[in-house]
Amino acid sequence: MPYKFHPGKTYRMPTHFGPSLGPRQGQDGKKFACKTTPKTTTMSVSFLTNREQLEEILPDGFEVGPEPMVTVATSYITEIEWLAGRGYNTLGVRFPAIFNGRKDRAFGDFLSVLWENLADPIITGRDELGFSKIYCELPEPRVYQSETHCVANWLGFKFMDLKLKNLKQIPPEDFPLPASGQTEGKLTGILHYKYIPKTGEWGNADAAYAVLTPFETPNQVVKEMWHGEGTVKFHKAKWEDMPTQFTIVNTLAELEIKEYCGANIVKTAGGKDLSDQRILL
Amino acid sequence: MPYKFHPGKTYRMPTHFGPSLGPRQGQDGKKFACKTTPKTTTMSVSFLTNREQLEEILPDGFEVGPEPMVTVATSYITEIEWLAGRGYNTLGVRFPAIFNGRKDRAFGDFLSVLWENLADPIITGRDELGFSKIYCELPEPRVYQSETHCVANWLGFKFMDLKLKNLKQIPPEDFPLPASGQTEGKLTGILHYKYIPKTGEWGNADAAYAVLTPFETPNQVVKEMWHGEGTVKFHKAKWEDMPTQFTIVNTLAELEIKEYCGANIVKTAGGKDLSDQRILL
Amino acid sequence: MPYKFHPGKTYRMPTHFGPSLGPRQGQDGKKFACKTTPKTTTMSVSFLTNREQLEEILPDGFEVGPEPMVTVATSYITEIEWLAGRGYNTLGVRFPAIFNGRKDRAFGDFLSVLWENLADPIITGRDELGFSKIYCELPEPRVYQSETHCVANWLGFKFMDLKLKNLKQIPPEDFPLPASGQTEGKLTGILHYKYIPKTGEWGNADAAYAVLTPFETPNQVVKEMWHGEGTVKFHKAKWEDMPTQFTIVNTLAELEIKEYCGANIVKTAGGKDLSDQRILL
Amino acid sequence: MPYKFHPGKTYRMPTHFGPSLGPRQGQDGKKFACKTTPKTTTMSVSFLTNREQLEEILPDGFEVGPEPMVTVATSYITEIEWLAGRGYNTLGVRFPAIFNGRKDRAFGDFLSVLWENLADPIITGRDELGFSKIYCELPEPRVYQSETHCVANWLGFKFMDLKLKNLKQIPPEDFPLPASGQTEGKLTGILHYKYIPKTGEWGNADAAYAVLTPFETPNQVVKEMWHGEGTVKFHKAKWEDMPTQFTIVNTLAELEIKEYCGANIVKTAGGKDLSDQRILL
Repeated sequence: MPYKFHPGKTYRMPTHFGPSLGPRQGQDGKKFACKTTPKTTTMSVSFLTNREQLEEILPDGFEVGPEPMVTVATSYITEIEWLAGRGYNTLGVRFPAIFNGRKDRAFGDFLSVLWENLADPIITGRDELGFSKIYCELPEPRVYQSETHCVANWLGFKFMDLKLKNLKQIPPEDFPLPASGQTEGKLTGILHYKYIPKTGEWGNADAAYAVLTPFETPNQVVKEMWHGEGTVKFHKAKWEDMPTQFTIVNTLAELEIKEYCGANIVKTAGGKDLSDQRILL
Repeated sequence: MPYKFHPGKTYRMPTHFGPSLGPRQGQDGKKFACKTTPKTTTMSVSFLTNREQLEEILPDGFEVGPEPMVTVATSYITEIEWLAGRGYNTLGVRFPAIFNGRKDRAFGDFLSVLWENLADPIITGRDELGFSKIYCELPEPRVYQSETHCVANWLGFKFMDLKLKNLKQIPPEDFPLPASGQTEGKLTGILHYKYIPKTGEWGNADAAYAVLTPFETPNQVVKEMWHGEGTVKFHKAKWEDMPTQFTIVNTLAELEIKEYCGANIVKTAGGKDLSDQRILL
Repeated sequence: MPYKFHPGKTYRMPTHFGPSLGPRQGQDGKKFACKTTPKTTTMSVSFLTNREQLEEILPDGFEVGPEPMVTVATSYITEIEWLAGRGYNTLGVRFPAIFNGRKDRAFGDFLSVLWENLADPIITGRDELGFSKIYCELPEPRVYQSETHCVANWLGFKFMDLKLKNLKQIPPEDFPLPASGQTEGKLTGILHYKYIPKTGEWGNADAAYAVLTPFETPNQVVKEMWHGEGTVKFHKAKWEDMPTQFTIVNTLAELEIKEYCGANIVKTAGGKDLSDQRILL
Repeated sequence: MPYKFHPGKTYRMPTHFGPSLGPRQGQDGKKFACKTTPKTTTMSVSFLTNREQLEEILPDGFEVGPEPMVTVATSYITEIEWLAGRGYNTLGVRFPAIFNGRKDRAFGDFLSVLWENLADPIITGRDELGFSKIYCELPEPRVYQSETHCVANWLGFKFMDLKLKNLKQIPPEDFPLPASGQTEGKLTGILHYKYIPKTGEWGNADAAYAVLTPFETPNQVVKEMWHGEGTVKFHKAKWEDMPTQFTIVNTLAELEIKEYCGANIVKTAGGKDLSDQRILL
């Protein structure tokens, strides 16, 4: 007797060994509360660029938000419940955007690409959430003489340097309000575009829709925060350097940096399982 | 102006940086002929198990083929064109199966899971082809005193040992015919089940269909071949050892090994880009 | 003209490219102050064992100290100046010992072996300091449901699990005095035995002498500290599992654990360059 | 009772767990015959440079040989007996040199530095043999459109590219004689300079002497060979890129390439345990 899918359970390939294990479904369907974990340290640098350059990397239905400001952020995450306490690292590139759908209108940050250094969250994130996750190596940040230096490599080719310095610690009373506090009933959050090609019909899609990660993350608490200066540089790659990703890196390398807008280090505890991820119509 | 999808081009997440790069679409849409590359060395061990145990890992529409014989195979692949000459390794578990669709009937090997040690081919294989690819570490085989020993680990947890010995080289005139020569007009090949969950509707799917990799691979030439004895062992894992994969490994560990059916090492050159992958209806 | 050694400079193989670079000699001979860095998090578990078993791993001139208590400690080190802000991890096994030399008498902890996950500090530590450093993989600790779990692998073979739980934070006023405060003029510190074999005369030595790392580390400040319970397990290895280290791991696995004596997590900042490392006569 | 050193056995740090395990001493003192293994594939590129530049990286007692020709070679080694069938990779830089000692006169190739991608052979090679081994990452070669491309990285910083093309296979009858056939009673082989600093006396040495790896390797058989064209490039590094090795890489990057002298790929089987390594007086 072939197996049956358990109703209400989430599956991923391979579906043959029971409901899939991941951030939103653990052993025997267990949920993960994300109350005081994961612990995340995020380094980010922002800069102003040309609105036109950002428009060209937005799919149909999206427009650039109030300011063409790109934020490049690396996160170093530990104590992840669904990985039994292990961690992984990420590198994301986002900018303010607005989604105008047939039905939904949403505001937030468009996450154009998110590199991660572990395949398992890449797979769950792509399939279940529609995050544009791909792989790279993200070694721990170097800190030397008060400069923090984050790098990203793909099979030994270094394609990004992110540097932060002159960091001043922010007192807790000056921490910015979480994004969730500013929504006033509108749909706000991280915007993505999920796309899965249809096998054999190479120009068609199994799925092609906008998705939203709502900003609200009540369990997430900022523990420490620093503000300072920073720079970011994507290094142009040839096809043979990064045969699966050079177009991505080169597009980012071509974004004009009109003005840097500061850098942040933020340490947080807690999070959510992202089961509130939703399709935008 | 938001970007438009180029008609006829294949896309994957992130779709925002142009048509995706991969095995079937290189720089500027270039195709890869796979004429004399990649070079592949495959170690495989087969064993008879219970038909009932295999049925339980087959989705609707599939039945176990003539013999409940499982083949566990590791492949060490080099000189891959679409990776600009780099390589990667795989570990697959397959067994004979028949697909009875509404319209199609296909015979071949059902590939229940395929581990790979590089995220990029995992992503292209899942999204475009519907292969059940997941990640593990696959170090190069050890060869000591005529025994070949392949292992697979996930973040340091060893979950499989595959050992081959008493290997005799097969003369070229005794090489088996390629599978493609035995098809007689029937649909034959590697059978898979593609499944992508629908974001936010956690029990539903964006895609859920059987797919076929036709056996025909005219450019693939067997260069050398050995036959001998072998054993394979999957090691039971606890949730904390492999929180995303322990159900897969434990199901494989529970397969009864009624009788080993020999082991092979096969070296091949050439391949195909798998653009003939198709949906089974 | 062959090169000349610069007087007073430290050299390591290869000596041909100028004075060697390392913790005690940077670019152009620069010294590293280690004032507020590195940042170190150390997890340790202690247990009582048989005095006789420890005596058997002590070289001539050493005896076991007041209590046969073994401490197994993993350290996760970041912001290392001499590595331009990078980090690495260590796993050490030490116990109290006394050195009675021809001339010197020293008290402290005998460091029987120190695994590190980066070759560069292994090389400097062996050659310059006489630390018994060897290589293994030391992934970041896992923290799940208040249990901290550290593992050590060698090319995928997991040979150690160290677990800590029920950890209570110690208030700063209860931090133990640094070891340096307890010396009263005696030689105290970490005890090692440096040994370099003589090339071609395989039973003879180029160097064979006891060395001392004095406890004094004025720049090192304890930032946070927790005390609780813990366990440690070395896993017996076969020659083929760890062909260069199985005798080490198996000796440690055979140490009887008569009673656990607690576990600690200690976070420190600052250190020293160990240029005070000295030979014991 | 402290342990005693077993007479005639070789020891390395840590000496406390019995005779050391390595290429010349396995489990229970077992020797490794190296009859048909390891399997080695070596890619090498040679070029003429300035005699003066090579003299500056030669220690006292050495002079540059007949021609100032540098050979940069990467080797990819598998089936190593003393590693229970595992492998590792190397990158060496050598040139012809003559040693004029108080007593010995030897001819051969001076191996100025040898990178390896595994700590265990680095440690045995440095301590026992006096090879100038240090660590780097050496991924498998890429082969694309008949070009072979080898790279070397240190913690993600790529410091070398070696490329070979237009390779013609050499028929076995044209294989060059092994170096051992050309010695005529003279001391010939690979020349090295062993140096171990003395702990605490930072300008002094525990060991400082020339050593020789005799060319004779009767078990080593050339299986296949190709000759063609090649280039090699060392990339200048800043201190922060390679804080332990930038002086080495930069010296090599500064060697003038007056003329390339061809490239080779050689596949061999068999070797020796290097127990004939000897001090030159």
